[in-house]
This record gives sequence, C-alpha cells and structure tokens, in this order.
Amino acid sequence: MAELTQLIDSEVFLAYSTYAAIVLLKMMLMSPCTAYFRITRKAFANPEDAGVHGKGEQAKKYVRTDQDVERVRRCHLNDLENIVPFFGIGLLYALSGPDLYTALLHFRIFVGSRVFHSISYLVPLPQPCRALSFFVGFCVTISMAYRLLSTSLYL
Amino acid sequence: MAELTQLIDSEVFLAYSTYAAIVLLKMMLMSPCTAYFRITRKAFANPEDAGVHGKGEQAKKYVRTDQDVERVRRCHLNDLENIVPFFGIGLLYALSGPDLYTALLHFRIFVGSRVFHSISYLVPLPQPCRALSFFVGFCVTISMAYRLLSTSLYL
Amino acid sequence: MAELTQLIDSEVFLAYSTYAAIVLLKMMLMSPCTAYFRITRKAFANPEDAGVHGKGEQAKKYVRTDQDVERVRRCHLNDLENIVPFFGIGLLYALSGPDLYTALLHFRIFVGSRVFHSISYLVPLPQPCRALSFFVGFCVTISMAYRLLSTSLYL
Repeated sequence: MAELTQLIDSEVFLAYSTYAAIVLLKMMLMSPCTAYFRITRKAFANPEDAGVHGKGEQAKKYVRTDQDVERVRRCHLNDLENIVPFFGIGLLYALSGPDLYTALLHFRIFVGSRVFHSISYLVPLPQPCRALSFFVGFCVTISMAYRLLSTSLYL
Repeated sequence: MAELTQLIDSEVFLAYSTYAAIVLLKMMLMSPCTAYFRITRKAFANPEDAGVHGKGEQAKKYVRTDQDVERVRRCHLNDLENIVPFFGIGLLYALSGPDLYTALLHFRIFVGSRVFHSISYLVPLPQPCRALSFFVGFCVTISMAYRLLSTSLYL
Repeated sequence: MAELTQLIDSEVFLAYSTYAAIVLLKMMLMSPCTAYFRITRKAFANPEDAGVHGKGEQAKKYVRTDQDVERVRRCHLNDLENIVPFFGIGLLYALSGPDLYTALLHFRIFVGSRVFHSISYLVPLPQPCRALSFFVGFCVTISMAYRLLSTSLYL
C-alpha cells in the first residue's frame, strides 16, 4: 500500500467518505419510510405499536403484515446486504491507493445504482429494472474487491 | 481533513473505537438472546435444530414461529439497520477531526439510546419509549453525517 | 495505540484487509445464491419478479415462500449479523497494533468458521455443526473486542 500520509488526506479517501456517507444516509431513509407505511397502512409488528393507533379489538387487528410494508422492509434488507460490503470493501479499496478517476467512477456508479434500485423497488418499476440496478452495484463492489486483493494480498 | 498523525492516535478516534466496540458487542448479544428464546420457547426455524430437542412428530411441531422469538429478531434487525450507519458514518466523522467534547457527546448519546431501545423492545415498555430511543439514535447519526459532509465534501 | 505510519502499512492491516475482503465476498455470494433458489424453486417475493416467469394466474402462484429459499435467506442474515461486528471490531483491533501471529490466527479462524457455517446451513449438516461454527466465529470477535477494549479504552 502507498504512504500513509497520502492516504486519509487524499482526494480518493475524501471521495470515498462523501459517497459512503450519502449511500448510508439513503439506507437510513428506509427506516422513516417503513414507519410511514406502517402508520398509513395500519400494519404493525408489535401490539404496543398498534395500541397507539387503536384500542382493544381494533388494536389486535392492526398487528398484521401488509404488502407495501413488506416491500419497503425487503428493500431495506437488500440495501443492508449490498451497502455493507460496499462500505467495507470500499474503505479498504480507498486505502489501497487507487487512481482517483477510477475510484470516483466506482463510487458514483454504485451510489447511482442503489438509488435507482430503491426507486425500482418502491414504485415498483417492471423487471428487469431492479435486477439490473442490483447487478450493477454488485459488480462495482466485486471490481473494487478484485483490485484490492490483486494489489495487496496477505494470507 | 486534519493531519493524519493526529487522527488515529487522537482521543477522538480512541473514543470512537471504544463506543463502536461497545455498541457492536451489544448487537452481538442479540444472537445468544435469540438462541435462548428459541430453546426455551421451543420454536425453531430449521428441522435439524428442532430434531435436537425432540424426535419425529414432536420435532416437526417445534419448527414454528413464536411471538417472543420474532420480537428478539426484529430488535436484532433494527440494531443492524441503525448500528451499521453509526459505525460507518461515525468512523468517517471521527477521522474528519471533530471537537472531542462534541464527538463524545454524539457517541455517548447514541450508545445510550441503543441500549435503551433494546430494553424498550424486549421488556416491552409502552410506546413511545422505543420510538423515542430509536429517534434519538437516528438523529445522532444524521448530525454526524451533516458535520462530515459539511466539512469534507468531494463529489 | 501504536505509531500511525506503522499501522495501515503494517502486515497486520494488510492481513485484516485481505481476510475482511474475502469474508465480505463470501457474504455477497449469498445474493446470487438466493436468486438461484428463487428461480429454480419458482418462489418469488414480488409480483413483478413472478411475472417474468409466468403469466396471469400462474404468476400469482409463484409469489410464495419456499423452504430452501428461506434457508438461504436465514443464512445470509446470519452472515450479516456476524460479519458486520467482525468487520467493525476487526478494523479497530487491527489499528490497535496487535501481534501479527495472534491477529492472523483470529482472522483465519473467523473466515474458516463462517465458510463452514454456510456449508453447514445450506447442505444442511446435522447439528451441532452449524451451532459450533457460529460459536467459534462469535468467540473470535469477542476475543478481538476484549483485546481492543483492554488496550485502548476511552470512555
């Protein structure tokens, strides 16, 4: 790996830091989104939540699953499954001293693909919109992992 | 960003490292907690697990969902959804050279809010205990992301 | 913590970087694995996905849960629950300047235990294969957290 003082102050690390924060914020947005659907659809997972929106028998009816709520939750879980590897591999990749232009390309495509993935999932757009956006983000992370492991392997 | 040698050895990074480790350990605790509820409630997800606690027809009955088990699992998933962004954004925030007092305030409030969130979820305490503790932790992460992006944006 | 210039360029950090990338890639593998089972078992979560593999009434039948698909998804979620703490605590541990031999031992055992966990889950092997592999990985992370917190605690 390159000299350390060139690393965290470097433009690559700043770029990583910016895009990683953006994509993590996007993932966090799914939580209020789930809450919004749970409240408008009156579909709660916990009796104590349903109790706020209705009393007695009515509250019990609100403890149920709803297609829209489940859709947001699947979207959130898919974000977790993909943004966690991006964050981890991206951090190590950014510290392995890649070319700035290449790194920016990776980060931008990934963030774009995840934003498009969420839109495709929540609208929902017809397939293969969602499958493609998932696949693009997946390949970006694989590409960073390939570059990372090929430049600095220590088993 | 500030000079590198001041960063990882800095008190801010040490504080981040301590609180991040604590909150990750708290999240890991949910796994034995799930196992405990699965075994005491005899509610397993896999036939091979149920087979350890009963034979034949009885084992089949144990492959079921249970309200208490599902509650722990939702609590665990909520931890993942919130602690992952805290870990990621917090790391970048700690490296962006914030004021020590402000940083400690962020980390302490977040860890406190997540511990209180788990207690609210598992007891369960009446709402809005859980909603408030979730919201406090959420705002801490947003606040760190705001400070991070406002001091070091590189698009 | 040790001098910074000795850290990220150090063999410990290189080793961490390699093993973390490998275990994150392993986790990512679960996504195509889920897709494979969803397509071969014809069990989809979204109507727009089922619509690609069948028309009208048939598509509706494909929106269902399947035991094999659920098994892969549980395996994926368990990976998330365990690999996220490993990644986080491992990163801070690698930066706290541990002994190279000890660190390598931790990383290798963790990666081995998670690979064996996935195999145990997906085959599935009889218990306690999966429980043991989970437990070994869990203890490795706890051990790193212990060393981290005992050398650099800042509350």
